[in-house]
Amino acid sequence: MNLKPTKPLSGFIELLPVQQRCFDECARRMQNILKLAGFSRLDLPSVERAEVLTDKDNWDEIETQMFLFQKGDTKMGLRYDGTVGLSRYVAGHLNDLVFPFRAYQFAKNYRGERPQKGRYREFYQMDLDIMGLGTLSENYDAEIVATIAAAYESIAEFIGGINARIGSRPFWNAAFEYFGMSSNLAKTALVLIDKKNKLSESDFLAALKDALGDDFAMKIFDVFSNGYKSLGGKSEGLDDAIKRIDDFMVLLGSLGVKKAVFDLSIVRGLAYYTGMVFEFYLDKYPEWGSIGGGGRYEDLASKFSKTKIVGVGAAMGPSRVLVALMESGEIDLTPFESPIDVAVLVMGANQVAYSMSVLSELRNAGIVAVPYLDTDKKFKNQIEFADKIKSKFSVIIGEDEVINQTLSVKDMVTGDQQNLTLSDTIKLLKGVK
Amino acid sequence: MNLKPTKPLSGFIELLPVQQRCFDECARRMQNILKLAGFSRLDLPSVERAEVLTDKDNWDEIETQMFLFQKGDTKMGLRYDGTVGLSRYVAGHLNDLVFPFRAYQFAKNYRGERPQKGRYREFYQMDLDIMGLGTLSENYDAEIVATIAAAYESIAEFIGGINARIGSRPFWNAAFEYFGMSSNLAKTALVLIDKKNKLSESDFLAALKDALGDDFAMKIFDVFSNGYKSLGGKSEGLDDAIKRIDDFMVLLGSLGVKKAVFDLSIVRGLAYYTGMVFEFYLDKYPEWGSIGGGGRYEDLASKFSKTKIVGVGAAMGPSRVLVALMESGEIDLTPFESPIDVAVLVMGANQVAYSMSVLSELRNAGIVAVPYLDTDKKFKNQIEFADKIKSKFSVIIGEDEVINQTLSVKDMVTGDQQNLTLSDTIKLLKGVK
Repeated sequence: MNLKPTKPLSGFIELLPVQQRCFDECARRMQNILKLAGFSRLDLPSVERAEVLTDKDNWDEIETQMFLFQKGDTKMGLRYDGTVGLSRYVAGHLNDLVFPFRAYQFAKNYRGERPQKGRYREFYQMDLDIMGLGTLSENYDAEIVATIAAAYESIAEFIGGINARIGSRPFWNAAFEYFGMSSNLAKTALVLIDKKNKLSESDFLAALKDALGDDFAMKIFDVFSNGYKSLGGKSEGLDDAIKRIDDFMVLLGSLGVKKAVFDLSIVRGLAYYTGMVFEFYLDKYPEWGSIGGGGRYEDLASKFSKTKIVGVGAAMGPSRVLVALMESGEIDLTPFESPIDVAVLVMGANQVAYSMSVLSELRNAGIVAVPYLDTDKKFKNQIEFADKIKSKFSVIIGEDEVINQTLSVKDMVTGDQQNLTLSDTIKLLKGVK
Repeated sequence: MNLKPTKPLSGFIELLPVQQRCFDECARRMQNILKLAGFSRLDLPSVERAEVLTDKDNWDEIETQMFLFQKGDTKMGLRYDGTVGLSRYVAGHLNDLVFPFRAYQFAKNYRGERPQKGRYREFYQMDLDIMGLGTLSENYDAEIVATIAAAYESIAEFIGGINARIGSRPFWNAAFEYFGMSSNLAKTALVLIDKKNKLSESDFLAALKDALGDDFAMKIFDVFSNGYKSLGGKSEGLDDAIKRIDDFMVLLGSLGVKKAVFDLSIVRGLAYYTGMVFEFYLDKYPEWGSIGGGGRYEDLASKFSKTKIVGVGAAMGPSRVLVALMESGEIDLTPFESPIDVAVLVMGANQVAYSMSVLSELRNAGIVAVPYLDTDKKFKNQIEFADKIKSKFSVIIGEDEVINQTLSVKDMVTGDQQNLTLSDTIKLLKGVK
């Protein structure tokens, strides 16, 4: 019989236990920050109706982008982000939730496209949103930015520092209006501004000229040269947008965000953003692009409810960054090598029952204890096992220990061995933890 | 435009925040028990190649049982349990893992069948396995039973007590051989024994007679009447099986398992179990059937590797039980109503910056703090918000507080209000936590 392949499907992540422990610790720290900020965790289905996932009906195209399937008459598929399910959920629970409602998800999402280097078909995304009924102060947008910054800072020892780049859609809208650009040209301009950071200065200018004509191109280019404040006093809309930017940056400071800059080129392509937008970058690897971002949307759940839900949301994608840094060896995994406090080594079949009660007591005391219960194996195998699992201590149980109701406790680093009662063993092991 | 449906697909679970907090606390406690027992968490892909999921090629049938889809030439689908991925993973990482290797998964699994009451299409399963290369002592089987019992006991305040029922496949194999039954009749007998608990005594006997003839039927029926020890001394195989049962029950006692009984009717249908088998039941709701179980398998990964991997594994299904008990109101959700320590209420736009820095300091001190930042809303709305989110305290920030750099701190239960510095506020809130 041919053996089946042991590799996961391409684009699917599978970690070694030591890597998994590091990943889980990062996930725990980030989620702890979200909980301190009062975000409720939502655990929504991974599978949604196709009509919830998309408005399009060009199925051939959709099927290449998503994982779709059919049960009976119902077309369904795997979610590709947290927003689709969130909109449905909030619209369905308007009376069960307190608004402004703050929710986060930390869940697997799926993309059906062919996987590329650093792009996965299954990946974790941490989505966080604050939603209000009808209105929601822009102050919350600053709070979202600060919360993401704090979440990433909580894992800075693994990924290094991060910085936030803040953009303003209202600023550009007001600028385009002041310049007298049509809404079509304005849209084209936004697309080009979105790409600015991938182009040289001169290529950017050339692209602007090409698409918008020399006059509009130079006006936009000048804003980049002279800064957003150069349009102060030109129109009410611009003055308002500039004030909102300045207020926003002050709030970020109050919230303890250290590395945030306003960046005219941050607009985020997605149509549904209507206010401040933001992206996060690794200090060490700006070329990896955004590792998270988001912004404000004016009507989250219009497809599901007549109630207007205004919100600000963002997503963080820790999978790609953490996997890349673990695989390249840049994250030191030594602290995650072993979570085992003590290996319980059992010399013979007659000592198993006593060893089991010791094991049970150790665990009840909060000590991570792993037994080696193949009593027919040689002592050498047993001590090798304790070495390999990198336990801090081993407890050796032979005939004498059962008779005396004691334990031989060996420090696996120093090699020191002593004979102790169970309660002294527990004291020793808990003292070291 | 027609509004889209807000309900999740049938068979998919979606909890309210308060229910989610209870579920997450149960998941945390159960996983903590597994970690104390040294099990490494594995987070394997939800999607596997179809050939990994099944050996069958009757695709019509498979497609009704699973969620299957195709990308390019590759047929794939959502996993229905943890074992398929685990076998593949372990076979692919023989040199990366230390054996006996202990792993757990706590992950969503999927069944494509039409959902029924209490049966979900997406559900959490906690799989735990101990695997050895070539051999593995049966002592580990007892440890697995004890670990599951401890995991369920850690959430006894929510689901009540549980009990374990232990069965032995070797006992029945030896008995059938001693009775002189053919292997075909033996198989039929196992299937009937598996169903015994759903039948009356007389129906069980009638079914045995019908399928096996009066002689074999009575012999089996007598074992149930007289107990497994009644076959002691009849054959070497039976004596060995009886000793293994007795040793096993002693070990469970040593491991602190209080409610475990040997039950001849526990055989578990699945073909791959070869030794001791076990199931868990709720004390209060035995009629809900098994809430978890497992047993020993002699060759986990034969489809993936020529290396023989012997193991003992089990699965717990907390989704069904917890959801049912939460929805029926039997679980008191009061302790999960609010995780919020303090609401930060901001009286006007000029106090936002100061409030934000207070918010940041509170969170840095480990206090769960949620602000109300729509400063144009009335004070009544603000205090209503603090009531609705059931925060223990609220901090009220108006002009005076900014000038004096203090906070008005209100106990939301007693209504007491006092003016404090930030550091005294932190002391007060941390003292109450």
